[in-house]
Amino acid sequence: MGQIKRFLVGKPIATEHQHHERLSRITALAVFSSDALSSVAYATEAILSILILGGSVALGYSLPVAIGIAVLLVVVAFSYRQTIRAYPKGGGGYIVARENLGDIYGLIAAGALLIDYVLTVAVSISAGVAAITSLASTWGMPWLASYAVEIGLVCILLVSLANLRGVKESGAIFAVPTYVFIASILILIVYGVIRNMLFGAQPVVHRIDPEILGTGEAIGLWLVMRAFAAGCTALTGIEAISDGVPAFRVPESKNAASTLTWMVGILVTMFLGITWLAHVHGAVPNELTHETVISQIARTTFGDGLVYGIIQVATALILVLAANTAYADFPRLASFLSRDRFLPRQFSSRGDRLVFSNGILALGVFSALLVVLFQANEIAMLPLYAIGVFISFTLSQAGMVRHHFHIKEEGWRWGAVINSVGTILTAVVLVVLAVTKFTHGAWAVMVLIPMLVVLFNSINKHYSSVARQLSLEGAGRPIALRRHTSIVLVSGIHRGVLPALQYAQSIAPDNVMAVYVNLDSDQTARLQQRWIDWGFNIPLVVLESPYRSLITPLFNYIQEVDARYNDHVLTVVLPEFVPAHWWEHLLHNQTGMLIKAALMFNKDVVVTSVPYRLER
Amino acid sequence: MGQIKRFLVGKPIATEHQHHERLSRITALAVFSSDALSSVAYATEAILSILILGGSVALGYSLPVAIGIAVLLVVVAFSYRQTIRAYPKGGGGYIVARENLGDIYGLIAAGALLIDYVLTVAVSISAGVAAITSLASTWGMPWLASYAVEIGLVCILLVSLANLRGVKESGAIFAVPTYVFIASILILIVYGVIRNMLFGAQPVVHRIDPEILGTGEAIGLWLVMRAFAAGCTALTGIEAISDGVPAFRVPESKNAASTLTWMVGILVTMFLGITWLAHVHGAVPNELTHETVISQIARTTFGDGLVYGIIQVATALILVLAANTAYADFPRLASFLSRDRFLPRQFSSRGDRLVFSNGILALGVFSALLVVLFQANEIAMLPLYAIGVFISFTLSQAGMVRHHFHIKEEGWRWGAVINSVGTILTAVVLVVLAVTKFTHGAWAVMVLIPMLVVLFNSINKHYSSVARQLSLEGAGRPIALRRHTSIVLVSGIHRGVLPALQYAQSIAPDNVMAVYVNLDSDQTARLQQRWIDWGFNIPLVVLESPYRSLITPLFNYIQEVDARYNDHVLTVVLPEFVPAHWWEHLLHNQTGMLIKAALMFNKDVVVTSVPYRLER
Repeated sequence: MGQIKRFLVGKPIATEHQHHERLSRITALAVFSSDALSSVAYATEAILSILILGGSVALGYSLPVAIGIAVLLVVVAFSYRQTIRAYPKGGGGYIVARENLGDIYGLIAAGALLIDYVLTVAVSISAGVAAITSLASTWGMPWLASYAVEIGLVCILLVSLANLRGVKESGAIFAVPTYVFIASILILIVYGVIRNMLFGAQPVVHRIDPEILGTGEAIGLWLVMRAFAAGCTALTGIEAISDGVPAFRVPESKNAASTLTWMVGILVTMFLGITWLAHVHGAVPNELTHETVISQIARTTFGDGLVYGIIQVATALILVLAANTAYADFPRLASFLSRDRFLPRQFSSRGDRLVFSNGILALGVFSALLVVLFQANEIAMLPLYAIGVFISFTLSQAGMVRHHFHIKEEGWRWGAVINSVGTILTAVVLVVLAVTKFTHGAWAVMVLIPMLVVLFNSINKHYSSVARQLSLEGAGRPIALRRHTSIVLVSGIHRGVLPALQYAQSIAPDNVMAVYVNLDSDQTARLQQRWIDWGFNIPLVVLESPYRSLITPLFNYIQEVDARYNDHVLTVVLPEFVPAHWWEHLLHNQTGMLIKAALMFNKDVVVTSVPYRLER
Repeated sequence: MGQIKRFLVGKPIATEHQHHERLSRITALAVFSSDALSSVAYATEAILSILILGGSVALGYSLPVAIGIAVLLVVVAFSYRQTIRAYPKGGGGYIVARENLGDIYGLIAAGALLIDYVLTVAVSISAGVAAITSLASTWGMPWLASYAVEIGLVCILLVSLANLRGVKESGAIFAVPTYVFIASILILIVYGVIRNMLFGAQPVVHRIDPEILGTGEAIGLWLVMRAFAAGCTALTGIEAISDGVPAFRVPESKNAASTLTWMVGILVTMFLGITWLAHVHGAVPNELTHETVISQIARTTFGDGLVYGIIQVATALILVLAANTAYADFPRLASFLSRDRFLPRQFSSRGDRLVFSNGILALGVFSALLVVLFQANEIAMLPLYAIGVFISFTLSQAGMVRHHFHIKEEGWRWGAVINSVGTILTAVVLVVLAVTKFTHGAWAVMVLIPMLVVLFNSINKHYSSVARQLSLEGAGRPIALRRHTSIVLVSGIHRGVLPALQYAQSIAPDNVMAVYVNLDSDQTARLQQRWIDWGFNIPLVVLESPYRSLITPLFNYIQEVDARYNDHVLTVVLPEFVPAHWWEHLLHNQTGMLIKAALMFNKDVVVTSVPYRLER
């Protein structure tokens, strides 16, 4: 067991080796932006997948919708620059909302974010798999698409293992795929724009033509609002930098703020560029081939060759990195919640490798479930996505408004204005998201968040109650220890029992008894016979058990003894023989273990195990 | 938890209520014959599914093959009448082979039978589902067939639960479906024969015509042997009566023997009749519609109406009863093996409801796995089936030959001749089965049986070794008890720790120490401060742990103390606070439990838990 774990997650790391690498702006951009930038891979497609319901004319609205989202992006980014300045130690939604608006808002933000991190993994991995299967289809391997779920699960497993080992936030791993992705998408856009201007647009050729529906839905405000809501997934991840300010080189806040500006600039450029190219080439989501919009644009622009392949692989890699970002965020947020006693304390203990192993495992399990549930179809998951992040945006920026009024730092009025605009805008978008996506799955998230908040609070109540009960505040000195009584449970008489009898006699010389449950009269008679020789003169009590239960007669007897000697401390002694190999435990009744558990839970007695070790 | 169990399996039953109903021959036939008779539902189809490979001409061999199998049936039945006479207390293959041929042959028979019982459940349930889905298809619900696996699993679950409750072997439950089945099949045969004679044969009309292959395989000895081997599944279950002799009314042996004769008579009639009808109507296995051969014959003879429906339902019911028979046989055989120390002892303890619950659970799990693995296709499972039962036939009859020579009872020579013929014939058939079915799955059974025998033997060796080590034979009186040292493990100082400190001090007043593992220097300093007030003057030892492990520094320290006081008994005391509700355990680190387990397994120390009970 231990060896398997060592092989998978590596040797333990000493606490003193915990360290924080400071990141230059160039590497920081790579480390923190993969989540935000990777949304380029599916945000345009999400918009088109709604507009297509209005038929081919409606597809023309994609560009205005994308421009609206780009404006929103810029406003939110400005708003977050305020957070970065105010929280140089890192200001995630939970911390900012809880500090400024109170526990309940902090917990709502936390619940929303936990859900969104799980979705980040599921959506990013599924979109990454789609990038690869689209490439495979174009290169003559369409069968790969039927293994999408399996590939997705393997990816989640690998990312989970990498994080359990502890991925160093070392720049190179992140920098190469991120910059290759940025470069290849920018080249695609620039080359595509020039080519279109010189030679005119060339329509995408599909292997199987997509169905452009346009029967059911009228083109109107509702459809455009739905498309806008769908495209808001482009905003997920832009809060990442504000969480990670301390990782920047000094001056942290300034570097972080300028990195955020750069990131949003790149994101807006890529998002609008891809949306424009999709528009001119007539790229649309294709339910039948499952080919992504980016894949359609890239192969129409560059042909089926190497450049196209690089774009697809870079897209897949940055999506895996985006998933990996959630593997930093989720366990960290869970550890904050756990430290504040809103989640089980297991989430705040660091494992062998200094990582929050339980958070990593929980994230892996939940996101794998989503991938199976949605059959690795990222477009189908999107209605659940983004709600959480907009709740967090709204609460965190409302918190910042409170913060400005409270602290009144230099230039606070201007800051308050920016954050107020941000709050109002994200709140309005949140309502749009909630309304338009409600029946498409968002209801599940909106039910889940209050349930999580209730859960957080009841966990907190439990821990507080335990702490109060265990507090030494006002505890009197315990009264002098009472006398000892001890009961040895025996299942027969053999070498394994003798040390237990002897031990029980030594701690309660005056008041010791052995107890045996009669399940078979012949065996009982034989035991009583042999007890004369080997019983250390300890009285043997035989209990009757008409239903062959051990626990019931035993508990009744313990209660009786407890009442008789109510000023004594009662110790129940269990003789246990320990096999030489762990798997041999399976060959012995686990009765001892069950009795121990039942005693601990139900009876106020001391339980003592006296081992007898077998040699082979 | 307890309530759920009570609802599913019912209230416990007292040992004294264990009783054995004596069965009349009429009810005994119903109770013991369902396994054997139900094979009529698939044996003919199994023969045809092989012959069809040789094309439509080869199908003509079905009747001669069936007659050969009928002869074999009669011989084996005669042979088993000897066993019934010789073992009035029940002579299953394991008992007869082990007693007369030695342990190893007994274990081979036992392993073979255990495998076959699992297959009995999987095959019977799958065939029962096929009877129902065939009926559903004819009655316009062909979609039901796509849920065959799910229906099969639900049936296994229900039969398992019924057996965990303890099905009484009361006649009525068995008698009604068995006799309805016998009656309806006999009526089908008689009516079918008369109708054919008067009006000539009417061919089966298929919804989709089956593919009659006949390309690959030449019609020759090999194909006929394979068909014969496939049909030998008709013999499974005929040994059931010899296992259950004590359940008959006096004179047990005589009644059992005549019941066996009746059973074989009915079985042979039904099997030959169905095979003949299949032949004249041209009924063949239909891969495309999955309609059973019986269903084809029945609806061709009686039309799609009620009589046809009754036949299909009766077939399904007797197949469920056949599966239920294995639920008596498997747990009983497992309990024999467990009593003889060849299987874990958990298999020989009776549960609340007086049944061998673990055997029932094991059978349910393994047969459910087979149903999933083979997608509830009973014809695909048949190559694995029957091998086990023929191994048991051969060994048990060889054992009977030895028995006759050993006991030399009156008329033993005649008995020896009968059993010798039986042995030789079943051995020859066994070789035919093994050779013809080898590549179709029988190899798996032939690999599994020796593995089981090795497993049985190593379990036996372990138990013997434990018994030797625990034996009081030659055990000296334990030396007088040594002095006590005790170590209290503390995770802090709070009310939950005080009783443990006090207890430890009381059992080892001169030699007690508290141990704390330093994971955070600030917390450690605070603890040391408070220890002055609350530590009962017990010395506090702080252990360093660079890798945040609790176990490693603790074990090193225990080893050190053990060496220092090597003439003392060392008790490790663990303070444990017990939450008011069991689910609250999840909110606390399970560290205490892990430490206890690690200590028990690795260190020769006494482990004591001192509880502190929380109120709410």
